[in-house]
Amino acid sequence: MLLLRHCQGVTRVGLLKTQRLLNSVATPSVTGCVGSLCARWGSSHGGQESGSYKRSHVPNWRHALAGLLAGTGAVLAYGLHSQAERAATTMVQPIDPPTSMPIFTQDDVTKHRSIEEGVWVTYKGSVYDITEFVSMHPGGDKILLAAGGALEPFWALYAVHSQEHVLEILSEYKVGELSAEDRRKQQTVKSSDPYSTDPVRHPALHVNSLKPFNAEPPAEILSDNYITPSAIFFKRNHLPVPQVDPKAYQLHVEGLPGAEPLVLSLEELKTRFPKHTVTATLQCAGNRRSEMNKVKPVKGLNWGIAAISNATWSGAKLKDVLLAAGYRPELAQQACHVQFEGLDRDATGTTYGASIPLHKAVSDEGDVLLAYEMNGEDLPADHGYPVRVVVPGTVGARNVKWLGKIIVSEEESSSHWQQNDYKGFSPATDWDTVDFKSAPAIQELPIQSAITQPAEGATLDRRAEEVTVKGYAWSGGGREVVRVDVSLDGGQTWKVAQLQGGEKPQPGRAWAWKLWELTAPLPPATQELEIVCKAVDNSYNMQPDTVAPIWNLRGVLSNAWHRVKVTIREDEEE
Amino acid sequence: MLLLRHCQGVTRVGLLKTQRLLNSVATPSVTGCVGSLCARWGSSHGGQESGSYKRSHVPNWRHALAGLLAGTGAVLAYGLHSQAERAATTMVQPIDPPTSMPIFTQDDVTKHRSIEEGVWVTYKGSVYDITEFVSMHPGGDKILLAAGGALEPFWALYAVHSQEHVLEILSEYKVGELSAEDRRKQQTVKSSDPYSTDPVRHPALHVNSLKPFNAEPPAEILSDNYITPSAIFFKRNHLPVPQVDPKAYQLHVEGLPGAEPLVLSLEELKTRFPKHTVTATLQCAGNRRSEMNKVKPVKGLNWGIAAISNATWSGAKLKDVLLAAGYRPELAQQACHVQFEGLDRDATGTTYGASIPLHKAVSDEGDVLLAYEMNGEDLPADHGYPVRVVVPGTVGARNVKWLGKIIVSEEESSSHWQQNDYKGFSPATDWDTVDFKSAPAIQELPIQSAITQPAEGATLDRRAEEVTVKGYAWSGGGREVVRVDVSLDGGQTWKVAQLQGGEKPQPGRAWAWKLWELTAPLPPATQELEIVCKAVDNSYNMQPDTVAPIWNLRGVLSNAWHRVKVTIREDEEE
Repeated sequence: MLLLRHCQGVTRVGLLKTQRLLNSVATPSVTGCVGSLCARWGSSHGGQESGSYKRSHVPNWRHALAGLLAGTGAVLAYGLHSQAERAATTMVQPIDPPTSMPIFTQDDVTKHRSIEEGVWVTYKGSVYDITEFVSMHPGGDKILLAAGGALEPFWALYAVHSQEHVLEILSEYKVGELSAEDRRKQQTVKSSDPYSTDPVRHPALHVNSLKPFNAEPPAEILSDNYITPSAIFFKRNHLPVPQVDPKAYQLHVEGLPGAEPLVLSLEELKTRFPKHTVTATLQCAGNRRSEMNKVKPVKGLNWGIAAISNATWSGAKLKDVLLAAGYRPELAQQACHVQFEGLDRDATGTTYGASIPLHKAVSDEGDVLLAYEMNGEDLPADHGYPVRVVVPGTVGARNVKWLGKIIVSEEESSSHWQQNDYKGFSPATDWDTVDFKSAPAIQELPIQSAITQPAEGATLDRRAEEVTVKGYAWSGGGREVVRVDVSLDGGQTWKVAQLQGGEKPQPGRAWAWKLWELTAPLPPATQELEIVCKAVDNSYNMQPDTVAPIWNLRGVLSNAWHRVKVTIREDEEE
Repeated sequence: MLLLRHCQGVTRVGLLKTQRLLNSVATPSVTGCVGSLCARWGSSHGGQESGSYKRSHVPNWRHALAGLLAGTGAVLAYGLHSQAERAATTMVQPIDPPTSMPIFTQDDVTKHRSIEEGVWVTYKGSVYDITEFVSMHPGGDKILLAAGGALEPFWALYAVHSQEHVLEILSEYKVGELSAEDRRKQQTVKSSDPYSTDPVRHPALHVNSLKPFNAEPPAEILSDNYITPSAIFFKRNHLPVPQVDPKAYQLHVEGLPGAEPLVLSLEELKTRFPKHTVTATLQCAGNRRSEMNKVKPVKGLNWGIAAISNATWSGAKLKDVLLAAGYRPELAQQACHVQFEGLDRDATGTTYGASIPLHKAVSDEGDVLLAYEMNGEDLPADHGYPVRVVVPGTVGARNVKWLGKIIVSEEESSSHWQQNDYKGFSPATDWDTVDFKSAPAIQELPIQSAITQPAEGATLDRRAEEVTVKGYAWSGGGREVVRVDVSLDGGQTWKVAQLQGGEKPQPGRAWAWKLWELTAPLPPATQELEIVCKAVDNSYNMQPDTVAPIWNLRGVLSNAWHRVKVTIREDEEE
């Protein structure tokens, strides 16, 4: 919590406003800059910050990788690059060296932490009075978290600030320099970019947000592998990746009446409990959000169709750990939820958190794991090293990574992500009328499918005489996909696709997706196809036809029929 | 199994064909009759036999009952009538008394049981050679079940035959009379109508088929009661209602390795096991089939929106009985299914049968009951007296009534209803291409909702200024309905309805429906409303928008948005 202190600074502020106006002569007009910033933010708000980066850097890699992956079971060979990190960093221009402007101490700055008394911040040794900018800040009141201190740690959390025009705007508000002593103190503080230790990522990923890192694999690669290689498994981080020393790692299990909290080391988790392996698909609640965005803008990362992947996970059963910690079945009368806390935390120290129903956590058939392996290796850093929760059949958000604490409770997690996010609403509900308490937290996800090949806008060759359509299908809650229907005419007529799954799952435990494929003759007398897919699970749940009636303000649960338009190129030679 | 014997009768058949042609002069042409029969059958096949009866007899009762039911908790008071039975019976005209035609013995008739040797049958003392009619029989090869014997027991099973034009067709094929001795023998056989002991039913029911009895309550009554009164709870019988003596009743439990079969009397079932009560909604797989019939004809009873009802059920837990019979959890590795056999049987002695996954049967949270009470009283005859299975969250067809036998098995039930019926298929699948093995037997049902008020075609009064829309919503598998969206403009805009459920269910055990209601202002400037509803369950499964893409040849799983068109009558006086 930030305490906003009152201080005296009216005269000085008056003087400095003149200075700011003088400075502005040498730069574009403030109005113009702010307008420009807002416009760019407006189009990229919600994590699409790296849209332009993605488009300029990814395609070459994508094509190279697609070549490597030709054929089933191709080995992923790639160089690990951190171009993304470097690209974002080098965009920040260094601020000019100290001038003859007024000198302030850190104490002077610290006194300006409110609209009433002025909002001052420092950046690379300079001092800025951003009071007037607060109301124009596209990110809203969050800017006040930095009041009276340095901008660096906050800008580091939100990479949208690493752009030249943002620094231009900031320069308008410069009121002086920080004292030499306080500059030295700031410089001796270790780099405060919490993302500086994030792992390097696979260059084929389509990046939706760099800080925090959110990315999906190219759709055409996704359906090449029943088990998604870890490197291209979609990444959905809410915060910086925490650095966890496996030797010092402790998992705390609390909330069981009459029992002491249980603390387990990584070694104990691996050796005291049987190791189970489950193949499970994880899907982000926002997968296919971009289709909802086309109906009406929603809040959230603009995911395509690949915020879903499939892996094998190994670890201890949550049920076994809860039993060791003192869980007894009769407790089910009192407690209803199992909360998880991650070791990833924001600038205020708040950790990521979520919860699942106790019923799922302790069911023999629930298969909830405290996983320490993914695809036969230690969990990668992006996927929760050293321990994460895997809740098969349940939305990705409850599969808490970098797991630090488990709490058995009468209540759901109080976290933002459980209470005020990841819930579905009627298309009639907007941000003025939404009552987050009125909807249940998403747990099991509904039936889903999408076309990974051909891609939207692709051109088919008439001489091929047929088209092969590929995709994935999955349903939450352990419900098995039993059929995928494919249409080449926008849903007027249908054909049944071939399903390609793993082993026949046990009833109610179909945690993994099915890939599917259909090869059909190219229809004559048309140059355009609207290819559509829809899946059915073994509870005979079906996907809704269209997006608009399931539109919701957070853009979650986007599972209408997937549609891809392609054209047929006629052979002019014949 | 019917053995088709070969016999010699060529000369006689040749002679009798002449006789038949002579007879045909005095009656309408054969072609005309057959054409007429096929046309009528085509429109009423699959149990709509009583459509005309329903329309002529029910409305008066419906209005009377609607009056009685005004207000919550109104007591159902009605007279029990068997008009339906009488109406169907009196439609059959007696055959003319014996003439000077050839006399045959029963042995003569019995020799004609194949297409090659001729297909003979008897009806009320006359003998018919129906060989040429077999290929024209709308019911297909089933007609051969009666070959060489009497038609009465088979016609009694399928009331569609109790129509005058069917007898006209039959008369075309008359070849002689049964000997006086064999006529006497037939008359001394007790009435072979297996439906003669069916119970009397509530006159408000809309009858879809009289023999077997299938009926649904008027939709506008359905949503008046959270607990559906047993008398108007929808009835779905596949066969005649068996007469079970409760003192002689035995429940057999078999198939458990290393354990003797368990046999329980009704008294033992009631006293040896704890009594559990569950409120659960049952729904026929064919509920709302009539909407699919409008897209393209399907096979099955033409159910409206009320083949669904909600009741409290009390009985022993199936799990407890299986444990008493020797079930041990390790058996789950070998056996996967629990089969049920009813005491209702067809003319060949085949009983109704179905099965459910063992996983559901033995789960503590599955709540599967061997119920002997419905709404606090002994099960009514139509609902399985004295014992039925109640499988909450699962399609009605698995809730086997008049339960006689439970078999734990590696295999699903081999019954017609498990193997070759009650399965979903793609709209592309027709009767020429269907492979019943390719689809799973329906168990859990998908999310469902419908509008019970106003009725299709209703007229609203503009002076009322608002409209109240009511309905029900339910989902299978214990998934709770969390929201119902209602549109007054065909799905362009939506409002959220108020849900009216019972107590908050435990997670995964929401077995009962929710009734819902929305009162909204009448939109100005329109005289027509298309009212639409769609529900969402807590796995965020949603109903598909339209019927055609989920159409299937059996007309099951009809759960698209429900649509009702009404008109607004403007007040001319103002």
